[in-house]
Amino acid sequence: MQPDEFRRIGHEVIDWIADYRERVADLPVRSRVEPGWVRERLAPLPERGEGFDGLLSDLDRVVLPGTTHWQHPGFYAYFPSNASLPSVLGDLLSSGLGVQGMLWSTSPAATEVEQHLLDELVGAMGLPERFRGGGVIQDTASSAALVALLAALHRQSGGTWRQSGVDGTETVYVSSQTHSSIERAARLAGLGERAVRSVDVDDVLAMRVDDLASRIESDVEAGRKPVLVCATVGTTGTGAVDPVREIAALCAEHGIWLHVDAAWAGPAALCPEFRHLFDGLDQADSFTANAHKWMLTAFDLSLFWTAHPDVLVDALTILPEYLRNTATESGAVVDYRDWQIPLGRRFRALKLWSVLRWYGLEGVRAHLRRHVELAEMLESWVAGSEEWRLVAPRSLALLTLAHRDGDDATREAMDRVNAAGDAFVTHTTVNGRFAIRVAIGAESTEEHHVRALWQALAASG
Amino acid sequence: MQPDEFRRIGHEVIDWIADYRERVADLPVRSRVEPGWVRERLAPLPERGEGFDGLLSDLDRVVLPGTTHWQHPGFYAYFPSNASLPSVLGDLLSSGLGVQGMLWSTSPAATEVEQHLLDELVGAMGLPERFRGGGVIQDTASSAALVALLAALHRQSGGTWRQSGVDGTETVYVSSQTHSSIERAARLAGLGERAVRSVDVDDVLAMRVDDLASRIESDVEAGRKPVLVCATVGTTGTGAVDPVREIAALCAEHGIWLHVDAAWAGPAALCPEFRHLFDGLDQADSFTANAHKWMLTAFDLSLFWTAHPDVLVDALTILPEYLRNTATESGAVVDYRDWQIPLGRRFRALKLWSVLRWYGLEGVRAHLRRHVELAEMLESWVAGSEEWRLVAPRSLALLTLAHRDGDDATREAMDRVNAAGDAFVTHTTVNGRFAIRVAIGAESTEEHHVRALWQALAASG
Repeated sequence: MQPDEFRRIGHEVIDWIADYRERVADLPVRSRVEPGWVRERLAPLPERGEGFDGLLSDLDRVVLPGTTHWQHPGFYAYFPSNASLPSVLGDLLSSGLGVQGMLWSTSPAATEVEQHLLDELVGAMGLPERFRGGGVIQDTASSAALVALLAALHRQSGGTWRQSGVDGTETVYVSSQTHSSIERAARLAGLGERAVRSVDVDDVLAMRVDDLASRIESDVEAGRKPVLVCATVGTTGTGAVDPVREIAALCAEHGIWLHVDAAWAGPAALCPEFRHLFDGLDQADSFTANAHKWMLTAFDLSLFWTAHPDVLVDALTILPEYLRNTATESGAVVDYRDWQIPLGRRFRALKLWSVLRWYGLEGVRAHLRRHVELAEMLESWVAGSEEWRLVAPRSLALLTLAHRDGDDATREAMDRVNAAGDAFVTHTTVNGRFAIRVAIGAESTEEHHVRALWQALAASG
Repeated sequence: MQPDEFRRIGHEVIDWIADYRERVADLPVRSRVEPGWVRERLAPLPERGEGFDGLLSDLDRVVLPGTTHWQHPGFYAYFPSNASLPSVLGDLLSSGLGVQGMLWSTSPAATEVEQHLLDELVGAMGLPERFRGGGVIQDTASSAALVALLAALHRQSGGTWRQSGVDGTETVYVSSQTHSSIERAARLAGLGERAVRSVDVDDVLAMRVDDLASRIESDVEAGRKPVLVCATVGTTGTGAVDPVREIAALCAEHGIWLHVDAAWAGPAALCPEFRHLFDGLDQADSFTANAHKWMLTAFDLSLFWTAHPDVLVDALTILPEYLRNTATESGAVVDYRDWQIPLGRRFRALKLWSVLRWYGLEGVRAHLRRHVELAEMLESWVAGSEEWRLVAPRSLALLTLAHRDGDDATREAMDRVNAAGDAFVTHTTVNGRFAIRVAIGAESTEEHHVRALWQALAASG
């Protein structure tokens, strides 16, 4: 494809996306296809090249019916995954440049723009100064948790982990509400699930520090080595906030790495009025917040900071001959390949940069505040309802609610709302009871969408 | 940003990329900036949003001078990383749709298009039928190697690895030419570098099966558990090809997982005349080939197949309550979150689909063959030279050469070529001697570019 063809077809693709975004609110949020429906409609790969029209036509004919529309204003499922249009353009620029930023020297701007943005966000989000110079973009919060665990293992071993691996006595701690991502990280790191301590939670589903303390103590007494505690600010189920400062004190006492996972809630730190949720973060060893969840940036872009980049780099670095270069050997640059699981890396910073410049910090804050206000509105309706109740306190823009008649009524309401196609909600369980999660955060969600969701739920009762 | 603004600005961004690609050949391949040059020119994040013009202007003013141009026709460094323009548009569509395909149910088309393409490529690349239904897109070959190792550990343990982790007796094997990626995977998996056996190579730098056999035997005798052998088809240094069939026989005898890493050379399997390089692949447990290296697809898109997806899924699966859904529980669908390190995933298949449809299989083959022909041409010039020699046999489109006067002359020639800005080559060492790698594979590289490179090298003598 020559640049002139790209110009012409590229404009068509841009228009296709603009059209899609204009009409997405009219499509059913959730795909209604059965397993296999999409595949049955796909042609074998062509021997000879074809134009781009066939692909665009297949998008309309096959892909859109098979798509669950995460950019739909009625998307309240999981967590938001906003691919704002400026971020789409930033990502397009990244693909267009086509650089691979594994080393500073393989494209200095890819590294330095990323360093700049992560350092600027330390100020804008009120993060501890010890994170300055320790920021990097990861693909996801699950990878970020794994990276934190690997650095923690390396530090705990006194630097022998790289050479000797794990010894089977290492333990990690996380509340029962955030169990799965850390369980998986522990598995990948060779510790096995048996290394994971699922800490009890209190009545607002936050980690109980007394239970954490007693688990750490009994592990230490048994000769095991506590390596990492993962505190969560905004759990997936209900948005619960673990008491970071108290947990940090315990970690400091035992020399344990404290990772704070705020994958969803993290961007709220841009707003001073929400910063109390992050109290104690100045004592954390690492922190993650997903720009691709609630900071308008197209997946995948997880922000990660550590106060100990030296430990991380020492844990992960390799330097085969073909990667040796003058800049690396000068020690004057950061090579981000040593900060992540894969070796290669995209120029992901461009999509974040596009977002932060287009909206400005005030624009992003306004977006967050609007979602929280919509959630407060819904909270007030639930509070006034005789049929519905919150099963956990509202957390920022996340509500967890259940029908007073019990699990069957809640599930039926969810299924009915989802089948209607105007909204998509998912569920969790709280103390064994089935509950609907309403995660408000799509860029296009307005008051009337939330009102319609509430009416649909209420009608289900 | 509203769809109409996106339409207007999107056209500008497309045009910026078209302009960039039109003039990239006139830019110096390698960035010439000093460490810190880019950062010094970046403004603080704005409080109030701004238009897109500032960003585009910063791209010209700061980012381009700080960019090493991987899409330049004179890029012979590392391995090619072709971001062909159809793949850029496919990636744009992925960002525009903004779906997150962690589960089949979170966007069925994202999973089913991927399954379709990976299965179609089994046929088109002549891969073993046992890989059908076992294909998935990973971000990079280093992640693919890690995923293979985790599945191998799980299988070797008889299914206890998930729960119990590693026990410190597991060993992995790779030739001294591919040491670093597997060393890193072993580290991440908790085995430590001490688990990695660096197998000797023969005079064409391929793994010596006799040395592999004796290392496996002595490990078994010592009570250790051989878990994985990584055979490489096309090593990074010189493109050496390990004898897969003989290695496979040894692996079968000992119940060892055989992973075949063809990150760069893998796409050559599209051409029947190159398939002999992959002889024995029908005995492999897993295989990886990077579409983002030599299959015209924008980074990041690594093709991975395993003959044992059930083992992989059992190793990596988690199912917290919030991910439960009817489709998953029916068993009728594949949830790709269980096939990779991160939880979330982009609709990456779109950029591969765009490439395969635009060029057609014949178009991709023509591209590969043209690069090999250019390498053969350069090979013939080296063969006729009194100053230069190949230090390893040409491998497809990769040559490794050295000046007959020794390391200093080779290094000086490399530095002079790279400083001139028309070409960028990197180096390796072969048997302790410094050698220049010429990896031909940029989409825009033509005969006259390779001729100019040769003249520049020859002039350096």
